[in-house]
Amino acid sequence: MSVDPIALAKGVLAGDRRSVARAITLIESTRVDHREAAEALLHEILPHSGRSIRVGITGVPGAGKSTFIEAFGLHVVEQGHKLAVLAVDPSSPRTGGSILGDKTRMEELSRDIRAFIRPSPSSCTLGGVARRTREAMLVCEAAGFDVVVVETVGVGQSETAVADMVDMFLLLLVPGGGDELQGIKKGIVELADAIVVNKADGDLAQAAKRAAQDYSNALHLLTPASAAWAVPVLTCSALERAGVADVWSTIGQYRDTMQGCGRFSGRRAEQAQAWMWNEIAETLLQTLKDDNAVAALLPTLERQVTSGLMAPTVAARRLVHAFRHN
Amino acid sequence: MSVDPIALAKGVLAGDRRSVARAITLIESTRVDHREAAEALLHEILPHSGRSIRVGITGVPGAGKSTFIEAFGLHVVEQGHKLAVLAVDPSSPRTGGSILGDKTRMEELSRDIRAFIRPSPSSCTLGGVARRTREAMLVCEAAGFDVVVVETVGVGQSETAVADMVDMFLLLLVPGGGDELQGIKKGIVELADAIVVNKADGDLAQAAKRAAQDYSNALHLLTPASAAWAVPVLTCSALERAGVADVWSTIGQYRDTMQGCGRFSGRRAEQAQAWMWNEIAETLLQTLKDDNAVAALLPTLERQVTSGLMAPTVAARRLVHAFRHN
Repeated sequence: MSVDPIALAKGVLAGDRRSVARAITLIESTRVDHREAAEALLHEILPHSGRSIRVGITGVPGAGKSTFIEAFGLHVVEQGHKLAVLAVDPSSPRTGGSILGDKTRMEELSRDIRAFIRPSPSSCTLGGVARRTREAMLVCEAAGFDVVVVETVGVGQSETAVADMVDMFLLLLVPGGGDELQGIKKGIVELADAIVVNKADGDLAQAAKRAAQDYSNALHLLTPASAAWAVPVLTCSALERAGVADVWSTIGQYRDTMQGCGRFSGRRAEQAQAWMWNEIAETLLQTLKDDNAVAALLPTLERQVTSGLMAPTVAARRLVHAFRHN
Repeated sequence: MSVDPIALAKGVLAGDRRSVARAITLIESTRVDHREAAEALLHEILPHSGRSIRVGITGVPGAGKSTFIEAFGLHVVEQGHKLAVLAVDPSSPRTGGSILGDKTRMEELSRDIRAFIRPSPSSCTLGGVARRTREAMLVCEAAGFDVVVVETVGVGQSETAVADMVDMFLLLLVPGGGDELQGIKKGIVELADAIVVNKADGDLAQAAKRAAQDYSNALHLLTPASAAWAVPVLTCSALERAGVADVWSTIGQYRDTMQGCGRFSGRRAEQAQAWMWNEIAETLLQTLKDDNAVAALLPTLERQVTSGLMAPTVAARRLVHAFRHN
């Protein structure tokens, strides 16, 4: 594709959905000339970004994430907001589009003019997907979307990446008898700013309430209370579209609380800075790995390190030396 | 100091305590010639390292860590083992030696010929302290210490660094009415391979048992059970030296279980490899930060990034470009 980043930026700023989609495609491209155009585009839109609440949502497969995001999204747009849904799913190419790959899973929301849904890019690395999702978020904000949802699957490392790019992180769970968190990877519960127990309907209504109470007790015991915010545990039924209004008002309370104590902008500044340093570190490491002298040394050194025959510090110094003096 | 690393290595391998102390001092030095001598030393001792159980211990200030390590250490040496205690405490220079700074806190153990206690080096960065502690651990192992305890304070980021260098990670807690974990930073509980509730004596005996039960329930709810190992919660009284034998036998069970399923050596190989890549990344980043062209650009770019005027990816690319084409 041939790209005029300035014209594309204008389309994005005018809120043109086709421009938003094309801008994100440009950002996802790995071609060098596209990368340059993408940076020019980002330069144009950046002053107009940042004016949204960024919400991360995760949950195990089967928690009903798509149904929840549809119910939640419809409620949010009915309140007069514009909603964008992005996905971070490093495994999607292999598992065949496990999240958002099939827009029909959010049939009603995907047809709504006030919402914009974008599946996970088919890039292989988490770092790559995360970088593009961060930039796609900026594009959506510049186009006037004031609520940006970033969805991810609660089974891998992508949760930390998502928590590091959003203002608030929601964990979606289902009732199931005390062992519900078994499928959630270590540490993810600790990232949550709020927990939502979905499927509080029909036979599961009582179980959902009990599960919420159990989580609430466990959180009290295991998570240090933030001075500003105690992690709430809510129940909802995405199927019956009940309880999503409470989730939305909790997000509003969270934003007000964080803005009140200055943590809202503080967290964003820290995220931007950390993101910059991550980019630097990743770029440097990749350059080192692509280096011929390093590639020649690496297999032997790595084998010696893992078998305990060479100290990791010594191997590291040799590799960096080979890289720098090439 | 002038150093003959080969002679020093011989002293270490002979189990000479003075050589061990001097070898660790050499490792802690930041002088370039010392670093070269340290690497020569590591090269000599490495084939003789690795033959210990590496145990990380953390706990909030007031949990009685020193008293516990003294009671535990005395039990261990009485079983015929040689015990080394190292500390990772990036804050020690500022707080005036908060852990192990004062050996008299482990009076009896520090006088025992079968034990070796080394305070945290007065280096400023966690990365620096962690690197040196990892290498000090190898020195202790080469000298015949078959139990190496790495102590840290449970209030910062150092726990992850310690968990990444040991075979087993113990979290020391005290009874206190349900809110005991409030002082423990997010995620540390998730790192624990075993939890020990200390101060199970006198007035607190019952409270300690209740706290252990509470933690046990919470762990069941919040931590995914490892297929091979369920995290046990023990009680002990370091003051009365009761319960430390159970802690020691739990460590033995853990080692047997992990060795049985191959995870013991697997975890060590992963740790060594991850350590090598961390070293590479840190060295590269430091080289970039020390670069004049980068230093000239950095303040402006960083300010623009944190205030949302420049995309972090763009700033990162400019800095790496300045570094590479200098």
